[in-house]
Amino acid sequence: MTAIINIFLKEGVLDPQGKATHHALDSLGFSGVDDVRIGKQIIIKLESEDKIEAEKEVHKMCDTLLANTVIEDYTIEIR
Amino acid sequence: MTAIINIFLKEGVLDPQGKATHHALDSLGFSGVDDVRIGKQIIIKLESEDKIEAEKEVHKMCDTLLANTVIEDYTIEIR
Repeated sequence: MTAIINIFLKEGVLDPQGKATHHALDSLGFSGVDDVRIGKQIIIKLESEDKIEAEKEVHKMCDTLLANTVIEDYTIEIR
Repeated sequence: MTAIINIFLKEGVLDPQGKATHHALDSLGFSGVDDVRIGKQIIIKLESEDKIEAEKEVHKMCDTLLANTVIEDYTIEIR
């Protein structure tokens, strides 16, 4: 199975990388951009064939290593 | 409209961040992981309400600033 994890800064947490990118797009003449936010996407290939178990395992991975849950939210999609 | 851009290293390009994460997951006792790849997800809020035009604009943004097309591939989803 494949797990696709998207990790983003929580609403209200300043995203300096996004702000810098927004600024750079403006400088390059891309007007019409309201907001830019940048996150991580992690794709994990798992040996497990059990979707529910895989999701549980990936949740644990996120909480212990992949995401900083103080400032980040994450979503998991198992395929 | 909202553009969701996923940027990943091309197949065959070494992903040291993914390798390190894979190793860390192993050390933490998460066996059953075959592969880890880490990319960026960029979410851009656009003023434009024209889907086709928005997609064209975002393609240009990726080619000029957001992605390094020598070593990275990207996908665009417009919502």
